[in-house]
Amino acid sequence: MSFDHAHLLGIEPLAPRDITTILDLADQYADRGRSAAKYGDALAGLTQINMFFENSTRTQASFELAGKRLGADVMSMAMQASSIKKGETLIDTAMTLNAMHPDLLVVRHPHSGAVNLLAQKVNCAVLNAGDGRHEHPTQALLDALTIRRAKGRLHRLNIAICGDIAHSRVARSNIILLGKMENRIRLIGPPTLMPAGIAEFGTEVYDDMKKGLEGVDVVMMLRLQRERMDGGFIPSEREYYHRYGLDAEKLAHAAPDAIVMHPGPMNRGVEIDGELADDLRRSVIQQQVEMGVAVRMAAMDLLARNLRSRATTETVMA
Amino acid sequence: MSFDHAHLLGIEPLAPRDITTILDLADQYADRGRSAAKYGDALAGLTQINMFFENSTRTQASFELAGKRLGADVMSMAMQASSIKKGETLIDTAMTLNAMHPDLLVVRHPHSGAVNLLAQKVNCAVLNAGDGRHEHPTQALLDALTIRRAKGRLHRLNIAICGDIAHSRVARSNIILLGKMENRIRLIGPPTLMPAGIAEFGTEVYDDMKKGLEGVDVVMMLRLQRERMDGGFIPSEREYYHRYGLDAEKLAHAAPDAIVMHPGPMNRGVEIDGELADDLRRSVIQQQVEMGVAVRMAAMDLLARNLRSRATTETVMA
Amino acid sequence: MSFDHAHLLGIEPLAPRDITTILDLADQYADRGRSAAKYGDALAGLTQINMFFENSTRTQASFELAGKRLGADVMSMAMQASSIKKGETLIDTAMTLNAMHPDLLVVRHPHSGAVNLLAQKVNCAVLNAGDGRHEHPTQALLDALTIRRAKGRLHRLNIAICGDIAHSRVARSNIILLGKMENRIRLIGPPTLMPAGIAEFGTEVYDDMKKGLEGVDVVMMLRLQRERMDGGFIPSEREYYHRYGLDAEKLAHAAPDAIVMHPGPMNRGVEIDGELADDLRRSVIQQQVEMGVAVRMAAMDLLARNLRSRATTETVMA
Repeated sequence: MSFDHAHLLGIEPLAPRDITTILDLADQYADRGRSAAKYGDALAGLTQINMFFENSTRTQASFELAGKRLGADVMSMAMQASSIKKGETLIDTAMTLNAMHPDLLVVRHPHSGAVNLLAQKVNCAVLNAGDGRHEHPTQALLDALTIRRAKGRLHRLNIAICGDIAHSRVARSNIILLGKMENRIRLIGPPTLMPAGIAEFGTEVYDDMKKGLEGVDVVMMLRLQRERMDGGFIPSEREYYHRYGLDAEKLAHAAPDAIVMHPGPMNRGVEIDGELADDLRRSVIQQQVEMGVAVRMAAMDLLARNLRSRATTETVMA
Repeated sequence: MSFDHAHLLGIEPLAPRDITTILDLADQYADRGRSAAKYGDALAGLTQINMFFENSTRTQASFELAGKRLGADVMSMAMQASSIKKGETLIDTAMTLNAMHPDLLVVRHPHSGAVNLLAQKVNCAVLNAGDGRHEHPTQALLDALTIRRAKGRLHRLNIAICGDIAHSRVARSNIILLGKMENRIRLIGPPTLMPAGIAEFGTEVYDDMKKGLEGVDVVMMLRLQRERMDGGFIPSEREYYHRYGLDAEKLAHAAPDAIVMHPGPMNRGVEIDGELADDLRRSVIQQQVEMGVAVRMAAMDLLARNLRSRATTETVMA
Repeated sequence: MSFDHAHLLGIEPLAPRDITTILDLADQYADRGRSAAKYGDALAGLTQINMFFENSTRTQASFELAGKRLGADVMSMAMQASSIKKGETLIDTAMTLNAMHPDLLVVRHPHSGAVNLLAQKVNCAVLNAGDGRHEHPTQALLDALTIRRAKGRLHRLNIAICGDIAHSRVARSNIILLGKMENRIRLIGPPTLMPAGIAEFGTEVYDDMKKGLEGVDVVMMLRLQRERMDGGFIPSEREYYHRYGLDAEKLAHAAPDAIVMHPGPMNRGVEIDGELADDLRRSVIQQQVEMGVAVRMAAMDLLARNLRSRATTETVMA
């Protein structure tokens, strides 16, 4: 199992082989989580620090559990966005934590690129837990693992990503990953919520849910990111649900065995019909959460292996 | 030691035998805590998640310590009441955490019944850490253990519960537990702070402290829950202390060896005289806190044993 | 290695021999942190509770990591200053935690003397993580270790402490420690930010940076504690930087190999020039943070050894 990266900053820098390596190991962790087997202690003696500059109950909990289950010493810091108005101060905070010798630094930050900047300054492994509208690599990886387990493969699938594409780092990381694995991607949503320069992604774009969903294998809904919409078009929830919310009728246009996904937290009755979200014949939303822990265990395990092998070949310097 | 429950949601569903089982095991943990002995690792490899939708430094700390001392991976989530206005969203949050495969879920929630609802949706052991005005079972159990250690028995005692009965889940759980164990219970407090339908509890009710305390073995004071009083009668602190606050003079009416209890945090000079609270010949308030950790260790240990025995007899399913 | 103290409340009660004992052990932990070696499990089975009544990302993280790396069960409590307006309630909170049998209690509090008061009430080892304007012993110890590692000794050095002396417990603890170890200390800053009764410290006092820095081996900058200045003189940042901010020009007056220190968090361009802070030929600011974890490991390890040896010689009582 070879994974030659010092950090996990995005899907962009990963080769298809890297993605498969992470998913294969995550698969093993997921299977152990469903048996009585132990998770092992791949991170024993290592220090994991979670720096979340944006609140996220779900993602932070997932990283925290993944680390603790593998035996890491985990510390979660509540960072107030107010205390880090200047990029300079973000770096000072990071340098301070870096001086405490963490091995894994998990960072979420409201500004695109902030996590990459930080990774250049520290000498530990950095995992991007979401930065601005840029990337959210572990989300794309857990979505990929969920798809692969449900569909038996992760290539040549027709996959629709629906809703607020413009504000979504989840969409961005998924488009990159699913593209690298040679799937056909359709983006569905109001033109006002499509990013500029959408053409470069090489995807098909639809304004109409029924047409867009025609025959797809996977329907990936997105959260309506009202908090990221500054000015511009803000749809009413009712109107949005009518046109872009997923319900049984719209889903009938997809393949009969199409699966339904949502990264959570859901706005029921806005992006998705509540009953459909709970229908375990179609919805794999709970599996996504479950795979989230497995994917984060795998990613941290692989990065830690690289840390250890570097530590034994390099002369340790201050 | 047999304890056939999947959850600890309240005292109501417990048989006297169940209560004794928990207290006997808690007794052992309490004794270990006072020696240099180790606590063991009954929860090693298990994941405990604390979801507190109401703040509680004391109870959350007690559960957290209990879990960590028994080797669990413990994660405490700060849940904002604001983010869970709808019952629906509480369930979504719970389902998300459930998908991360916790073994023990400790929940405090402002709404009566919310914890029971949640327990129906998840497949881990749920412990109620207080829900609305409904139940607070570990508080009643720690009170029972404190009484049993101080008095040598937990039956045929005269026990007064004093103060704001109406708003108190502590009172409610204690009345149920102490009744099941065949004690005589007196409720003392202003009529405005007595719950409707008090008659059904089979307790004696007093409006006058001195009469109510006459000859009792145990005096259990309650916290004045101003935050739960919406409208209606709110007594002035001075008037309340004069009539219902426990001081040496009122306590003189109880049995000479009567013990004084308070679930904390105390309002000194409102519910209880500060000096009396600190008088170690009468007050067992610190022991209550100490027994709290022991009772929570015992409850989680017993629930975990059931989890493990089910895991070995059932085919594990997703 | 002998260290006969039950608590670490300040530098004042320590003999020079005690200081050397802590620094020698911290040196070992610091070296292990730079190799692949494990830290050991000196605190395994012990409970460490962090009670921070003032926010401090840095110090709290440092204590938390130190404890976790040595195997302690660590619990960090977010204490709101609002809930502890009365000294009485601080004691109640402390007594409650004490009843949960912690072994190590790390306390930061806005009032001078609060930590000492608390230490008299509990029966565990208390570490002062900063109390009002009184002491911050682990900061002085980490500064001392940083100096000793950079300069090869901790005596007969000329050390300048610069800036807001009046509001600084860091300055106070450092003055005491560096005095005990027989260094020459100069205090530099505006007269309005010098404490009353400065003469008693036996230090030289300067109003002019260039004169004060003449030939010193160590330049220790302080944080401008605006939040502690109630009324009185508050300098403008620009004026302050001009007169008392450290830059290359002012530093040129110090010894050619003088080191630059700051306890953090830094106000760049107020107390210190940003480039100078990052110049690794002069600045040891990152080493201070690194030594912070090592010093806290050493202090908790030594206090825990005393706890254990007392536990074996005493009859354990409730």
